[in-house]
Amino acid sequence: METCKITFLPYGKSIEISKATDLLSAAIKAGIKIFNSCGGEGVCGRCRVIIKEGDFSTELSGRISSEERKQGYVLACRTTPKTDLMVEVPPESRIEEMEILTAELKAERLAGLYTPAEELERVPSVERRIFTHSPLSTKVYLELPPPTLQDNISDLERLYRELRRSREIPIMQTGLANVRNLGRVLRESNWKITVVLGNRNRTTEIVIIEPGNTTIHNFGIALDIGTTTVVAYLVNLNTQEVMGAKASYNRQIDFGEDVISRIILAEDPQGLEKLHHAVVDTINELIHKLTKDNGVNLSDVYAVMCAGNTTMIHLLLKVDPTYIRREPYVPTANFVPVIRAAEAGIKIHPRGLLSCIPGISSYVGGDITAGVLASGMNKANELSMLIDLGTNGEIVLGNRDWLIACSTSAGPCFEGGGVKWGTRAMKGAIQKVKIDTRENTVKVETIGNSKPRGICGSGIIDLLAELLRNDLVERSGRLKMGRSPRIIQGEEKEFILVYADDTEVLQDIILTEADIKNLIHAKGAIYSGAEVLLKHTGFSFKDVKHFFISGGMGTYLDIEKAMMIGLLPDLPKERFVFLGNSSITGAKMCLLSQEAYEEAEEIAHKMTYLDLSTNPEFMNNYSASLFLPHTDIERFPSVKKILYKI
Amino acid sequence: METCKITFLPYGKSIEISKATDLLSAAIKAGIKIFNSCGGEGVCGRCRVIIKEGDFSTELSGRISSEERKQGYVLACRTTPKTDLMVEVPPESRIEEMEILTAELKAERLAGLYTPAEELERVPSVERRIFTHSPLSTKVYLELPPPTLQDNISDLERLYRELRRSREIPIMQTGLANVRNLGRVLRESNWKITVVLGNRNRTTEIVIIEPGNTTIHNFGIALDIGTTTVVAYLVNLNTQEVMGAKASYNRQIDFGEDVISRIILAEDPQGLEKLHHAVVDTINELIHKLTKDNGVNLSDVYAVMCAGNTTMIHLLLKVDPTYIRREPYVPTANFVPVIRAAEAGIKIHPRGLLSCIPGISSYVGGDITAGVLASGMNKANELSMLIDLGTNGEIVLGNRDWLIACSTSAGPCFEGGGVKWGTRAMKGAIQKVKIDTRENTVKVETIGNSKPRGICGSGIIDLLAELLRNDLVERSGRLKMGRSPRIIQGEEKEFILVYADDTEVLQDIILTEADIKNLIHAKGAIYSGAEVLLKHTGFSFKDVKHFFISGGMGTYLDIEKAMMIGLLPDLPKERFVFLGNSSITGAKMCLLSQEAYEEAEEIAHKMTYLDLSTNPEFMNNYSASLFLPHTDIERFPSVKKILYKI
Repeated sequence: METCKITFLPYGKSIEISKATDLLSAAIKAGIKIFNSCGGEGVCGRCRVIIKEGDFSTELSGRISSEERKQGYVLACRTTPKTDLMVEVPPESRIEEMEILTAELKAERLAGLYTPAEELERVPSVERRIFTHSPLSTKVYLELPPPTLQDNISDLERLYRELRRSREIPIMQTGLANVRNLGRVLRESNWKITVVLGNRNRTTEIVIIEPGNTTIHNFGIALDIGTTTVVAYLVNLNTQEVMGAKASYNRQIDFGEDVISRIILAEDPQGLEKLHHAVVDTINELIHKLTKDNGVNLSDVYAVMCAGNTTMIHLLLKVDPTYIRREPYVPTANFVPVIRAAEAGIKIHPRGLLSCIPGISSYVGGDITAGVLASGMNKANELSMLIDLGTNGEIVLGNRDWLIACSTSAGPCFEGGGVKWGTRAMKGAIQKVKIDTRENTVKVETIGNSKPRGICGSGIIDLLAELLRNDLVERSGRLKMGRSPRIIQGEEKEFILVYADDTEVLQDIILTEADIKNLIHAKGAIYSGAEVLLKHTGFSFKDVKHFFISGGMGTYLDIEKAMMIGLLPDLPKERFVFLGNSSITGAKMCLLSQEAYEEAEEIAHKMTYLDLSTNPEFMNNYSASLFLPHTDIERFPSVKKILYKI
Repeated sequence: METCKITFLPYGKSIEISKATDLLSAAIKAGIKIFNSCGGEGVCGRCRVIIKEGDFSTELSGRISSEERKQGYVLACRTTPKTDLMVEVPPESRIEEMEILTAELKAERLAGLYTPAEELERVPSVERRIFTHSPLSTKVYLELPPPTLQDNISDLERLYRELRRSREIPIMQTGLANVRNLGRVLRESNWKITVVLGNRNRTTEIVIIEPGNTTIHNFGIALDIGTTTVVAYLVNLNTQEVMGAKASYNRQIDFGEDVISRIILAEDPQGLEKLHHAVVDTINELIHKLTKDNGVNLSDVYAVMCAGNTTMIHLLLKVDPTYIRREPYVPTANFVPVIRAAEAGIKIHPRGLLSCIPGISSYVGGDITAGVLASGMNKANELSMLIDLGTNGEIVLGNRDWLIACSTSAGPCFEGGGVKWGTRAMKGAIQKVKIDTRENTVKVETIGNSKPRGICGSGIIDLLAELLRNDLVERSGRLKMGRSPRIIQGEEKEFILVYADDTEVLQDIILTEADIKNLIHAKGAIYSGAEVLLKHTGFSFKDVKHFFISGGMGTYLDIEKAMMIGLLPDLPKERFVFLGNSSITGAKMCLLSQEAYEEAEEIAHKMTYLDLSTNPEFMNNYSASLFLPHTDIERFPSVKKILYKI
């Protein structure tokens, strides 16, 4: 087999590959992360690289302009080498590690890790619930009375008797491994031991028995496994304190950015294996770093509580997700049994437990259950709505008596996908935009205050709202030529947000009419999904007393701008509450409290799923919402006032 | 390392061993079973072999007479080779495989496998209980409604829903392995599946899911793991039929005949490993043969229910039994959790379950719990007593309200141990004896009607009773010289039961005064243990309405002979019921009925244990019982009548 040496710039990393291997695969093998949304199908056009030296074969792509082609631009996934190559990965194609960012801006804020408590306090009607402290794993220190001729029950019964003195345990389970060590451990420790108890499918398991008093070392991990980002908390299960939080890209991104492309890959057993290992590696690395940074031993971590969408949970457990995307869209399990973390490959204590928050359907997963739990809307008398601005755009409506959810397939616009210069919330991402037409100036604010290299979700909403407010875009989404020198006719009509000289990437950062169209589709999907849920249940937006907005970008969301473009309904601002990443918040609650976990189960059981893909109402509403803010401006009186200067 | 070739006769098997290896170890390695009670310590004198050719080193032993030494007799465990050797294993040292016997006499009867139903019917007061048919593993055939857009709950919930339609399952458990296969199995089988449900520590486990309808193939194994013999039933879990029964020596015998020598060996981890594998190999071989003979696939066996003494259960599970023999005599577990059979090395379906019947203490195990269950004494209004004539000699007294047990360490006399010519119930064993002093004849009946080679338990009781009835032995146990030409002074005083010419072994088969002493000690231990239990609870023998006798030799026990020697109290014969092997009967009941298993748990919880080793009353009674039938002849009026011809 003939091989070629491929050197990637600016990293200086080299790898030997066969002539049949494409450059995207080569980059993955070399450990270099390049954007791609389609899993290497030549469709998304995001894996652009520049060939600096050497000969190659490539397919022509509409995603590369003729000008760019002359400069050496190709799609990595469609290009194979004929000779050794020098390949440059341009900034817009690089996936930067979040770790790089943490140094300059706290990763927690970026990933929306924390639910700002003061926000929730604004909602008096949502009962402030304190769940009993009863973590997934509990440590109990016992000094057993040593056996005598008068009291000579067996070691295991002695242990059970002592445990049951202080707590009610209807069903206690112990594995053979613990029984095998029991006699020795009890005697070597002089009958002073620490028992790790785990909640396992409505029974109590003796996870492990340790000599002496080790109760102060009892840690757990709360996980939010997103399609794009994985977030982990290290939690002290005794004090309930979050000791550290870390976020990282889900390594599955290397195999495609969206859930569907991953399901397709997983239909092949080898693909399933790859995706499983990718997410497990991501998780293990996060846990490793968190424990190391906080001086915690991996063997003192006994429990992992995990929230994620249904596909992510399937891949984590190496369960074939094929049937999720096939009619009638049925997952293998929404309620996953508690297992040993090691069975899924997660490295904590070898007998530690892994519990997943139950999901509702193929497209409304445990992350949404966790979000509802975090919001408390399931205990409120008044009607509330939860809107999760992730790729799936899930919406939940309900109160203490009922809950209904849908998934809108809004697309990744608000996470920076589907927009030419869109990017995730990372260093150099434009997150705020202010346009002044009279002076022809645009002020942008970037994450980390570095030179712009793209626009993240909140920046995109800001930009579109500013274009509308300044009459630079029609309500249909068409840019108004002549209203600003920044609106030009390039390959298509576009607005230049930042000129090339002011950017990191030395190219104009623009918003095209196609981007605007995508944005309008996304915001329309969410708005009309919400409308359908309301109509289906006989309510309207004004009946909703609380809107909970969640998602990694939710921390930054400017509510008024979101109303301006019609993403959120035009209602008093105080009805809206930012939850940040409500999935990890809910996971933490369930990790720390069996009561919270049981409430999550109750939520998942109670919640019904409305399938929009087969709902004619949705299509009608959706079409009507494809205007800025809406075809029916009367629904947005405050926006109307601004637009028509009334 | 210099090696020698050892050839064993009459087998013709050879093995190469180092010059440091003793001949007992060599025989074990060569797969030849030689009696030994002390685990190769040179104490028991049972591993006698004859060196036919070659040079060797040996230790002198009081167990070999000078005459025998000239013939080449040595103790195998104390002899090492200097050159290649030809070694004959004489008949009295051979452990014959029970399989040899089955051809001529049904192994089931020998091992006392079956409880004669007509015997139990004689006891109207013991309620004839029919337990609900709810085996350890149940198969359920389901035709699931395929999912639709209207009914699109997950595969696992669909399965749970269907299972719960017809049965109440508060806690259902499923392992990850099943979840991983679920989606594929359901669809490939067109939603027609068979679910194997297992009872696991008060929860219901989905053991495995099979495509199609496989309900007719559902088998289980009931096991009685004795120190000497392992008995297995193959049971059809649907029809409740016992399809086959097999018994085999416990291969642990190679490492010592009694429980204590095995515990000592197991204190070394390698010893524990050996003993564990020995019993597991024994069990696997029995299961293999049973399934093969009955055309059953091993993978259609999903459950094993096991009764055994506490040490045997520890060794089966590879749990260190060290503490059982150390004051205060505490086992690691009496109530052992249900595990996967594969975890203990037992080869059935890889996910099949292993359940052990709970024991009471270190020296009263699950075999006794099973015996009580089989007798039904725990449900009787009247007072009953269970006497198990095994090595431990366990006795249980009680009724529906209470149960108390003790263990008498009677020794293996009634199993053929501790008696010069004693043997287990096997081919050539004398099982009945009739002495006629006037004609100086002795009639013996052997198992298989072959030439005598030893005396088994029932024969030993018969012989001693006959010696007493014919005034050939004093009530103290001394043989009366001159009363018969068969009573001679050899190395010690002895009675010649069969002359050498009429035997298989071409030696006189004798009963020595030392043997009689051992027998008196054994029967005295059981009688006085029973007395102590009664006195402790304020009763006497006449208050006991039913005596249940169990043990592998119980089927043959002649009650009147047992009374004659004072083993059993002098009471109307109809109060005695033979249960045969009640341990395997109880195991079968628990295998077939969760209700029976729960009753076994209740028995084990309810039963208290009286430790005789620290009981002064026991020592007094014991001393008084060391006469034939007892120092106080008035306790045995019918025996008195016979002896004094009143």
